[in-house]
Amino acid sequence: MTTSDNPFAGYGGRIATDDGVYSQSEVGLANRNSGNLLETLALDVTPTGLHYLLIHFDVPLIDPAAHRLTFSGAFDAPFELGLDDIRALPQVTLPVTLECAGNGRSGLSPRSHSMPWMYEAVGTSEWTGTPLRPLIERAGPKDDAVEIAFLGEDYGFDKGVGHHFGRSLTMAQIAELDVMLVHSMNGQPLLPQHGAPLRLIVPGWYGMASVKWLGKIEALTTPFDGFQQVRTYRFRENDEDPGRPVTEMRVKSLMVPPGVPDWSSRKRWLEPGPVTLVGRAWSGGGVSVSKVEVELDGEWREARLDRRAGPYAWTRWSCDWTATPGVHLLRCRATDANGNVQPLDPPWDVSGFANNSAQKVFVFVADS
Amino acid sequence: MTTSDNPFAGYGGRIATDDGVYSQSEVGLANRNSGNLLETLALDVTPTGLHYLLIHFDVPLIDPAAHRLTFSGAFDAPFELGLDDIRALPQVTLPVTLECAGNGRSGLSPRSHSMPWMYEAVGTSEWTGTPLRPLIERAGPKDDAVEIAFLGEDYGFDKGVGHHFGRSLTMAQIAELDVMLVHSMNGQPLLPQHGAPLRLIVPGWYGMASVKWLGKIEALTTPFDGFQQVRTYRFRENDEDPGRPVTEMRVKSLMVPPGVPDWSSRKRWLEPGPVTLVGRAWSGGGVSVSKVEVELDGEWREARLDRRAGPYAWTRWSCDWTATPGVHLLRCRATDANGNVQPLDPPWDVSGFANNSAQKVFVFVADS
Repeated sequence: MTTSDNPFAGYGGRIATDDGVYSQSEVGLANRNSGNLLETLALDVTPTGLHYLLIHFDVPLIDPAAHRLTFSGAFDAPFELGLDDIRALPQVTLPVTLECAGNGRSGLSPRSHSMPWMYEAVGTSEWTGTPLRPLIERAGPKDDAVEIAFLGEDYGFDKGVGHHFGRSLTMAQIAELDVMLVHSMNGQPLLPQHGAPLRLIVPGWYGMASVKWLGKIEALTTPFDGFQQVRTYRFRENDEDPGRPVTEMRVKSLMVPPGVPDWSSRKRWLEPGPVTLVGRAWSGGGVSVSKVEVELDGEWREARLDRRAGPYAWTRWSCDWTATPGVHLLRCRATDANGNVQPLDPPWDVSGFANNSAQKVFVFVADS
Repeated sequence: MTTSDNPFAGYGGRIATDDGVYSQSEVGLANRNSGNLLETLALDVTPTGLHYLLIHFDVPLIDPAAHRLTFSGAFDAPFELGLDDIRALPQVTLPVTLECAGNGRSGLSPRSHSMPWMYEAVGTSEWTGTPLRPLIERAGPKDDAVEIAFLGEDYGFDKGVGHHFGRSLTMAQIAELDVMLVHSMNGQPLLPQHGAPLRLIVPGWYGMASVKWLGKIEALTTPFDGFQQVRTYRFRENDEDPGRPVTEMRVKSLMVPPGVPDWSSRKRWLEPGPVTLVGRAWSGGGVSVSKVEVELDGEWREARLDRRAGPYAWTRWSCDWTATPGVHLLRCRATDANGNVQPLDPPWDVSGFANNSAQKVFVFVADS
């Protein structure tokens, strides 16, 4: 099927709706894709089932016993593995913070028609599997191999183009990154929606690289031209811009909204007096967070940082505040060890990728 | 704090937005609350983490070891139990289909400002715990007790009123319903978002009765006047109507959308030829489904029904279809053993409760 003979070609405008007003199909995406609940940022590990989900097509329901991972293409020694083979290889468990590249899209104006994330598309899980690199070495990429493509079993259409979800990494990225082939999450076999029975985890990168329902690993002698590599997940100034690839996560922080919520507005109510604000901060590529600041009553105050659980896990922060009656706007921003600082306003991108601007939390503090 | 001195009073109109256009706060609710993925209707048990979540306030993070369930109020022999005590009682595992009372709200016009569910707020889990009735009998309701109230640890505001989520059942309902005190879901301890460490399950009723994070069971000598009992979860013709309580689930069916999706519109694409449509159907109060019909090319055809896993579990159905090129609208409707039939148009309710009208699935079948 080509682009022209199907009804999905051109569905969804670049800019679908006015600010603060959402379309039926955006709400459909919000009902399907789910984020964490910000109150669970209090926990080191996001509870299973609350890790965010961004699922492009349908979840394929795969029989783990029959599943085979094939290494094909420009390899000298292509082979395939079953789940038991992978479990028999050296096993590693790694806490990894993953964030969706589209997290924060709703904060941009104008907004791209896609999943309308606010703050919630981030989570940390303990992933268990085997390092990818030794398996690539075993398959032996030919001298003219330039990239390795990772293809999922999920299939569908985007902008009229039918494709399996797929992504690639260059040979240099394979050599540098701690990529894992993962079969378990938080000590349990992967759930169907998280990529069962096998997925990739690319620590330090936005989530699109961590291909779920992984079925094929293919060595390529020309750069991968899959839809999800060249048509989406690129930073672009405008629709004509060919763009630059989205890769490592940008430095970011979030806080647990203090006090208790109103059901429908999610505004917060708090008793006056001392309160300890807590949250999480992270950056990409294994870079540590060096500072978190919290804006309290117009003043940026430095938060305490805990030690993170590993090079790819978020850092817990905390900061004391004495809440006084009235309405307060709280914000937090992180700085990483490379000196990158979260901006206060969203960085522009036509697709709304990688919005790492400071979170805003409105709090109403009652009279004492 | 009273209704008048806080900023949430009156937040959110009865009718918030125009049809097909949603507000920022509705999308915020859609990002927080999550539904199942319709493709997993192929499975008898909804994967853990994909069971729908409707969470009024924040998830309370409770230490299971310290948690106590208290029986108080108009009981002759009030007592309290820890988790170990409850696990030492007779244990039952029951597959129960739960649906949110607000499921389908987005199908109504005009629409109430609340969680904008389409079809996805339903799931089936295997719940393990102990029957409630013997514990109520042990506590001994006094002769003038008329209701038993169930109070969660979650607290917040709705329409300016601060309250713990709470619901009640009458003494007659306690005697009739197979209510369970539940600590496990699908063979694992409850996850925080599903009510850990202890929740109620009221089989056959909409989900609001199955109180999560259960902390207190209180016998009352007058009907419970909690917000979630008298202000919400009532069928009303208009805003002045005092209404009738929402209780048992209405008969309903859903299908797995056939073929593959377009990412953003969720429209379906299918090859021409034979396809087996599958789905689930259920009703309330333990009543069985007697018939499922599927509308195919303008003709209602009767589906095959599998045997359900128990009196409170949904029924699998299937129906063969030969897909021909073109655009098709598929619908399904169920009839229960009491003769209740799903309507084709949504039944009116000002809050959008219990919309059990037939699901519509648009499918594009390619030329062969």
